[in-house]
Amino acid sequence: MGIVVRHVERTDKSVADAFASFGVATIHEAQGRGGLMGPRITPIYAGAHVSGTAVTVSVPPADNWMIHVAVEQCQEGDVLVVAPTSHSDAGYFGELLATALQTRGVRGLVIDAGCRDVAELTRMGFPVWSRYVSATGTVKETLGSVNIPVVCAGQLVRPGDVVVADDDGVVVVERERAADLLPACAAREDREAKTRERYQAGELSLDLHSMREELAQKGLVYVDQAPDD
Amino acid sequence: MGIVVRHVERTDKSVADAFASFGVATIHEAQGRGGLMGPRITPIYAGAHVSGTAVTVSVPPADNWMIHVAVEQCQEGDVLVVAPTSHSDAGYFGELLATALQTRGVRGLVIDAGCRDVAELTRMGFPVWSRYVSATGTVKETLGSVNIPVVCAGQLVRPGDVVVADDDGVVVVERERAADLLPACAAREDREAKTRERYQAGELSLDLHSMREELAQKGLVYVDQAPDD
Amino acid sequence: MGIVVRHVERTDKSVADAFASFGVATIHEAQGRGGLMGPRITPIYAGAHVSGTAVTVSVPPADNWMIHVAVEQCQEGDVLVVAPTSHSDAGYFGELLATALQTRGVRGLVIDAGCRDVAELTRMGFPVWSRYVSATGTVKETLGSVNIPVVCAGQLVRPGDVVVADDDGVVVVERERAADLLPACAAREDREAKTRERYQAGELSLDLHSMREELAQKGLVYVDQAPDD
Amino acid sequence: MGIVVRHVERTDKSVADAFASFGVATIHEAQGRGGLMGPRITPIYAGAHVSGTAVTVSVPPADNWMIHVAVEQCQEGDVLVVAPTSHSDAGYFGELLATALQTRGVRGLVIDAGCRDVAELTRMGFPVWSRYVSATGTVKETLGSVNIPVVCAGQLVRPGDVVVADDDGVVVVERERAADLLPACAAREDREAKTRERYQAGELSLDLHSMREELAQKGLVYVDQAPDD
Amino acid sequence: MGIVVRHVERTDKSVADAFASFGVATIHEAQGRGGLMGPRITPIYAGAHVSGTAVTVSVPPADNWMIHVAVEQCQEGDVLVVAPTSHSDAGYFGELLATALQTRGVRGLVIDAGCRDVAELTRMGFPVWSRYVSATGTVKETLGSVNIPVVCAGQLVRPGDVVVADDDGVVVVERERAADLLPACAAREDREAKTRERYQAGELSLDLHSMREELAQKGLVYVDQAPDD
Amino acid sequence: MGIVVRHVERTDKSVADAFASFGVATIHEAQGRGGLMGPRITPIYAGAHVSGTAVTVSVPPADNWMIHVAVEQCQEGDVLVVAPTSHSDAGYFGELLATALQTRGVRGLVIDAGCRDVAELTRMGFPVWSRYVSATGTVKETLGSVNIPVVCAGQLVRPGDVVVADDDGVVVVERERAADLLPACAAREDREAKTRERYQAGELSLDLHSMREELAQKGLVYVDQAPDD
Repeated sequence: MGIVVRHVERTDKSVADAFASFGVATIHEAQGRGGLMGPRITPIYAGAHVSGTAVTVSVPPADNWMIHVAVEQCQEGDVLVVAPTSHSDAGYFGELLATALQTRGVRGLVIDAGCRDVAELTRMGFPVWSRYVSATGTVKETLGSVNIPVVCAGQLVRPGDVVVADDDGVVVVERERAADLLPACAAREDREAKTRERYQAGELSLDLHSMREELAQKGLVYVDQAPDD
Repeated sequence: MGIVVRHVERTDKSVADAFASFGVATIHEAQGRGGLMGPRITPIYAGAHVSGTAVTVSVPPADNWMIHVAVEQCQEGDVLVVAPTSHSDAGYFGELLATALQTRGVRGLVIDAGCRDVAELTRMGFPVWSRYVSATGTVKETLGSVNIPVVCAGQLVRPGDVVVADDDGVVVVERERAADLLPACAAREDREAKTRERYQAGELSLDLHSMREELAQKGLVYVDQAPDD
Repeated sequence: MGIVVRHVERTDKSVADAFASFGVATIHEAQGRGGLMGPRITPIYAGAHVSGTAVTVSVPPADNWMIHVAVEQCQEGDVLVVAPTSHSDAGYFGELLATALQTRGVRGLVIDAGCRDVAELTRMGFPVWSRYVSATGTVKETLGSVNIPVVCAGQLVRPGDVVVADDDGVVVVERERAADLLPACAAREDREAKTRERYQAGELSLDLHSMREELAQKGLVYVDQAPDD
Repeated sequence: MGIVVRHVERTDKSVADAFASFGVATIHEAQGRGGLMGPRITPIYAGAHVSGTAVTVSVPPADNWMIHVAVEQCQEGDVLVVAPTSHSDAGYFGELLATALQTRGVRGLVIDAGCRDVAELTRMGFPVWSRYVSATGTVKETLGSVNIPVVCAGQLVRPGDVVVADDDGVVVVERERAADLLPACAAREDREAKTRERYQAGELSLDLHSMREELAQKGLVYVDQAPDD
Repeated sequence: MGIVVRHVERTDKSVADAFASFGVATIHEAQGRGGLMGPRITPIYAGAHVSGTAVTVSVPPADNWMIHVAVEQCQEGDVLVVAPTSHSDAGYFGELLATALQTRGVRGLVIDAGCRDVAELTRMGFPVWSRYVSATGTVKETLGSVNIPVVCAGQLVRPGDVVVADDDGVVVVERERAADLLPACAAREDREAKTRERYQAGELSLDLHSMREELAQKGLVYVDQAPDD
Repeated sequence: MGIVVRHVERTDKSVADAFASFGVATIHEAQGRGGLMGPRITPIYAGAHVSGTAVTVSVPPADNWMIHVAVEQCQEGDVLVVAPTSHSDAGYFGELLATALQTRGVRGLVIDAGCRDVAELTRMGFPVWSRYVSATGTVKETLGSVNIPVVCAGQLVRPGDVVVADDDGVVVVERERAADLLPACAAREDREAKTRERYQAGELSLDLHSMREELAQKGLVYVDQAPDD
């Protein structure tokens, strides 16, 4: 209720940047299927893929005052994460705030509410992952907080955590675990590259991953369709 | 239940056309945050932006007969607005009706129900803002009305009102207020252009709009993250 | 609960292929408005249009094991149809499984749950119609069935049926009726082409389809707006 | 935006009261199927049935200040109708405001947002029809308006209109039409009473309302199930 | 499209009746987790529990004509199952139709759309499981069919199948399997009774069902919270 | 992924119990509007009101194995809180598990998924707050965790926190803050009791809380309806 935490400890920039070469699904898998926001958060245009350090904002419903406050706390390489304290479909964010953030080197916005000016945001290449596209205006009357832990689309996000977003959604990586997670992501991609090649050669996962025996043990039965079925 | 109002008074065409240079969010703001349809209405393809005078249609669920009746009431510069009397996800509208409307100079369709033939509508450049994409067919059995006031996506629309739609959604401007609203839209865009320049120069809204004092009065507190937090 | 039916009887390939020249809405209409899945199933990218024979998969919530089993049952010209036994927003399907299916000549996936790797699927041109885009992972622990009748998005699909999908959604044609339905689709398109031409020439459906008398009989009233209304 | 209209003209009290003897469905039918709010508005407890004159409130999201303002405008026989300007699931209303309203003779609340204190409201017998039950608090910071026309759950409500609510939902009757509608409601109930008796005697609506011929004309076919079907 | 099948083969009445002593969850489990309608179908009042043979009705959106046609096809011990061909929240069914059905010995209604007159239906003890409570009226203009297979809330229902409904929802049992399923239901209840007793005596399912070893094999780890955690 | 934390530190029992005398809305307000779960979580029957210490369970979709594991970790005065790792409408919990929990003195269940056996749970007086009522069965195949922090309906819950639930929903109080919060709750109730009395005496909040001046400053305008409006 009205706190701005300054100088939060961020994930090391080289670490946060390195996640941009991995997809959201890969990172989600690599960290034991943690950190994924719910599928109600979707990109306003296709093809964006960003990674950065979270600046978090807890906002009242339909009041975007604290986003203005948060701009000052942002720096090159951040991603802004905005969570309303109760459900809101208002349009908290548009082209002007995006200009301010882009000028500071912020890479994108994740918001569990609405954004607007979609055509302009697309033109300027500032990606947003939101719950709604909505032109509804907001007020500047009630305080919220910046850089406190928030729950956004069912996922806990703390300031300085890594946030990665692509066409599949948004995943969060805890700051303390970020550096250690990168090798796991790379290893996963390597394994997938090998699987891909073998799939392209016509091999089946049933054989590649030796599933047939376990399927049989669980009771899977193969039958042929009777001729007159 | 079964009335067609002909020769409705429309907003002056030059006025209605002039709104096409403003975004939906700008117009919504300029009229004191009125007139916006709910965010459940979305465009079937990105990038369309139209303004026109409303021809309204009240339709039974899954019955598009009155849209056929409404075509005759449409003229160059209109936008068709269709509201079902109870919720329906049927596909009331497709490429054939779009052909008929486009031939008459109608600029687009807003419908709180489903439309279909999305690929063809995209190819022919006839924009639709709808609640659903749905191939479900409709019947032609029950009467509705044309050019009576309707509530579409939570917003009252009267025949002849201005309807503006873009990637952000759909906004309605009352016919009587339309001419007076244009200068307010233009003024708003001017102000935003100035703000944009100053944001690009690195200024903060906190200073530009002198928010710091009011935030402090409301009790906003800045704290530094403790080193061992 | 754990059955794989092999060698199911498929709709004749030339018949199934022929449906690709008709839109989903046309086919839905031509078969008396049957066979359409609900509008919650949407394409992950615009512009895809496929027709093929159904390989069906009944899967537990958030468990994609049976999709791996189903790959082996797929052949050139198939469309995979996946229905969870209870609601799930997990991401059952991604780029690796798509690679395996594409290698076998499968034309697309229809799933009443989530898919992921949308950017890669778009790049490789493997179309998916799904209920969610979701990076959430799945497990491989519980059996389901392949090539049994399933209900997908409210529609019964049997193995070997024709499945057609485009930007409007997904329609199913029963194997036994498929060949007979093609002429009806073609006839419908012909009629629509003629109607289109006449609409383009400015004719009204009210006259073209002689609706005026029936509208009057039902009680439709035309009134002129009073000058001071 | 910040207007309170005092001394609005209300429907005559004896007329408004008389609607309490008719169900919402009956009134909706009697006025040609107009005036019904959408089914997202549900009663917080079963069995309530009220009729009264509307005091309308347009409120910002999650801000209940104007409800406090509206209390003063309420009088014996009113029903409060609250519509947020954008979607909100906050709990605008609880037992204290209900006490204030009940003291003034207000009969109930209709709100297209949340209410709380459901247990207390049930105990004190103050009925509420709401979109959500939600304990989320609201602020008192932004103005709205009292006694202007509002759209609530898709339905236009003007101050002084009759609002009737029961277990089926909420219906609005325009002030000017209210007196004339009462006989139509009574006639409808009479007809239904006669139909009910004949149904209880085993008669079928097919015969009672002579539907068989029209069904046959439309093409209804009766077939017997084949013995081996 | 306009067919009424008469004299459908129903599940033996003694068999259908016997299911009324089992809960929906038990039956769903006993038949291998099949037959359950989606949870969007809820009872209009708590405590009802019925079992009967399905008379199925496929209805157009917001058109209840075929329910009137279906009444004649109903007999003592039936349950009416109504599925709209596209989504509808209209109120298809109320107290008058319930009177007609109750007079014929029908035990309840399952409808994937709206019903109304909830207060009256509760008083007369005619249970309804529906998707919506809605006073919206319907028309009688378009044909549908009676006693054809329908998909209701994601579940295939054929005429004569057993339909069981209670506070948990609605389950369907295929006519051909019904008699054989009864012993499995009874056995399940017996097992549950024994489990219940042992739970009441303080035993744990971990021991009762010997889960500890399998959990350990899968890797479950027990840790004690550190004193200063 | 597969951890059970034993002997978690719980809020002092006398403190946790004391919250049962306050409503969810009061506690939510007293802690600065924190801790409230989203309104999608509703009680399966009206009138329950419990307070207890959280035992948390993170479960896979449609797999209730870990609830069986959690039972052993529960003790007198606990409330079980279950959060699925991705959305699930399966029925995780029924009368048998409730028997096991009730035997151990657990006071209720909060689950962001489905529960079943509603009639039996009501009869035995074991209250559940859930997202769905659903008879869909679950499996016991995949591990989850017990007594780790979970996000349930948008709210962070840690083991040992206080969970209070009534007809308005569910609120969480952090263990460390619980004792200090009780006086604030009591003070709030006292203030409300005084307000209630004054409302009953006919006073207005406009005067009681001196709102008139601030409303005027913000620009609220009172107008009288013109006689011929």
